[in-house]
Amino acid sequence: MPKISQKGQLMPQSPIRKLVPFAEKAYQQGKTVYHLNIGQPDIKTPQVALDAVKVHSLDILAYTRSEGSEGYRNKIADYYSKNDIHVKHDDIIVTTGGSEALLFAFGSIMDVDDEVIIPEPFYANYNGFSTASGVTVVPVISKIEDNFALPAIEEFEKLITPKTKAILICNPGNPTGYLYSKEEIKKLADIVKKHDLFLIADEVYREFAYDGAKHYSILQENGLDDYAIVIDSVSKRYSMCGARIGCLVSKNKEVIATALKFAQARLSPPTLAQIASEAALSTPQSYFDDVIEEYVERRNVLIEELNKIEGVQVANPKGAFYCIAQLPVKNSDKFAQWLLESFDVDGETVMVAPAAGFYSTPGVGLNQIRIAYVLNTESLKKAVNIIKQALKVYKD
Amino acid sequence: MPKISQKGQLMPQSPIRKLVPFAEKAYQQGKTVYHLNIGQPDIKTPQVALDAVKVHSLDILAYTRSEGSEGYRNKIADYYSKNDIHVKHDDIIVTTGGSEALLFAFGSIMDVDDEVIIPEPFYANYNGFSTASGVTVVPVISKIEDNFALPAIEEFEKLITPKTKAILICNPGNPTGYLYSKEEIKKLADIVKKHDLFLIADEVYREFAYDGAKHYSILQENGLDDYAIVIDSVSKRYSMCGARIGCLVSKNKEVIATALKFAQARLSPPTLAQIASEAALSTPQSYFDDVIEEYVERRNVLIEELNKIEGVQVANPKGAFYCIAQLPVKNSDKFAQWLLESFDVDGETVMVAPAAGFYSTPGVGLNQIRIAYVLNTESLKKAVNIIKQALKVYKD
Ligand SMILES: Cc1ncc(COP(=O)(O)O)c(C=O)c1O
Ligand SMILES: Cc1ncc(COP(=O)(O)O)c(C=O)c1O
Repeated sequence: MPKISQKGQLMPQSPIRKLVPFAEKAYQQGKTVYHLNIGQPDIKTPQVALDAVKVHSLDILAYTRSEGSEGYRNKIADYYSKNDIHVKHDDIIVTTGGSEALLFAFGSIMDVDDEVIIPEPFYANYNGFSTASGVTVVPVISKIEDNFALPAIEEFEKLITPKTKAILICNPGNPTGYLYSKEEIKKLADIVKKHDLFLIADEVYREFAYDGAKHYSILQENGLDDYAIVIDSVSKRYSMCGARIGCLVSKNKEVIATALKFAQARLSPPTLAQIASEAALSTPQSYFDDVIEEYVERRNVLIEELNKIEGVQVANPKGAFYCIAQLPVKNSDKFAQWLLESFDVDGETVMVAPAAGFYSTPGVGLNQIRIAYVLNTESLKKAVNIIKQALKVYKD
Repeated sequence: MPKISQKGQLMPQSPIRKLVPFAEKAYQQGKTVYHLNIGQPDIKTPQVALDAVKVHSLDILAYTRSEGSEGYRNKIADYYSKNDIHVKHDDIIVTTGGSEALLFAFGSIMDVDDEVIIPEPFYANYNGFSTASGVTVVPVISKIEDNFALPAIEEFEKLITPKTKAILICNPGNPTGYLYSKEEIKKLADIVKKHDLFLIADEVYREFAYDGAKHYSILQENGLDDYAIVIDSVSKRYSMCGARIGCLVSKNKEVIATALKFAQARLSPPTLAQIASEAALSTPQSYFDDVIEEYVERRNVLIEELNKIEGVQVANPKGAFYCIAQLPVKNSDKFAQWLLESFDVDGETVMVAPAAGFYSTPGVGLNQIRIAYVLNTESLKKAVNIIKQALKVYKD
């Protein structure tokens, strides 16, 4: 029997996959499971987007241009300019989700054994895209005590080698919820210019900035045109994860020309989803106001309730819809499994994402979990109470 | 300014891209251009598929499972069993087009510098996926004199090295239109078993087999379960290229488990397109009968007209909707450009795909072009006449 590739063997599994069989067992036992582990929001997709595909007048569901339909790219450019980001349609390549934009960015700027520095904890699939591209992730630890702020620039500089090609940040962060300040972005700009590196910013949660804080994009930073690559997506912004539409944005013409070659090889991003995504750009501001209000309320409830639990430490997230909580347990992997297998409050339990999967440094984050606040406040309260009761009796 | 990757520099451009500016110039000059160069059929998408998305009842356009929705995978398995291919839903991973299935197959079974043997001429984007994966394409030449039949097995054996991981065929073939016989598939089965290689068959044109010939899938061949990986797609079958839905099918559990890890990293295939693709499986047989009849008529007209031109040699395609024509010119790249730039018959000209881009061996196929019969017979006749008139005056 022929063998699969080494790369295939090394491809990581999602940090949650291991828990799935235990969740299934819990269902079979008739338990209700609150899912704090997923990145799929429960927020409704804007009606304009859902309706747009209902009234399509296509006879032939044809390929669009590999870089995305021009009409849609023009409207994306308008969206950015309203957000003080000045790009043209030809600085944009429409991709199949932010996921594909990450893959194109990695492929366009990095070869096998090249290195990318990423503040950890980070979005777990960065590992998958790195492995698929043969690229090495070099983590720089950000700490819960600092609210997961940008590590000191010296920490980055210590890690730069001739193989380093890029720094990758997620802003606001999954799983941390941390929103980088303008000053932090400026520090990153300095370091990439000094060392001639690319700066990739995954800004898929751009719209989710709370407490009056304003998101500052790397594309707003002067002098960064040759260095900045932004990853974007409609998935979370409009709660349309299933569309699979994102984009790669850069003013570096060589990066765009190269990413375009990867885009041409796979022919076209999804056509129906581009129709929905173009329509989504007309979503009224009131939709976002409501969504932000809802997330802020959820976050407030979540953080307040978590802070009431003895031994739990939690950073206050200013963006996205995740937080990292440190628990008084040795191994949150085991704790998460135990919650599903052996614990319930009145037939209800919780599924959380053990945070170790978001770290690349072995042994770090073992006592942390990621909580996604993609449930309503009532459910969140119940879910946190389950964690509270569980910690009273759990022994590891 | 930081540098793009070597891989990115090596990524090939589509063989047609170079001609695009010349086509645009032709439009500006007011010329009509018959596009014989594209793989986008002009056939209507089945109404059931177009309608399915119009009546969707989604509130949230959510991710599906990474391997595709279970309902859809079950129905794909039914479709295969009607085609005498016996697979289960968990032998199938739904992908974003056949393109992504190719990428997952390459990533799952090959590492950097591994080799894949492909009969040439072949679908040009195999080069792109190989470059993106760091894999080396080893071509084995199939000849127009043989109608592009499978090269002798000894030719394959000469090329096998310790780095060879797979043989990749396209059946029926783009760009050749060649349909492999059962005997040819059996020969390939023997050789992959003997040398412990994977056999990847790109069967996206399965439904397009003419003159009573029946497509024989590698999944129908006994004893090949561990070796066979099929690439499939709804793009051409239902003329819904813009859906971006395909699948990877294998009974090798390790291959599926590995491809699934690549699928998980990118989260989900497009949701709306899965709805359309599931509905497309209910397309009435009459649709296919009509489409096949149409393509056969087009092929007949095309081949007949081409054969009337002095000095033109053409293989008779039994499948797909392409053919390779050998012209009495030295360099079809230049000829194709000249057609757009400097030639017309009553204001009309033709865009063809120079065939060199479908060969990996340098210098081969320079006097060939690929013609896609994605236009109606009337247009095809006019287009071939333009080529005929052009050859009378062209000098290279
Ligand atoms: C930080 C981050 N980047 C990228 C993605 C990819 O999302 P998509 O491919 O749906 O755009 C996600 C999804 O959860 C994410 O959290
Ligand atoms: C032979 C072959 N394989 C695969 C593909 C990829 O098609 P898609 O990604 O649209 O399924 C094509 C498209 O033209 C093709 O001709």
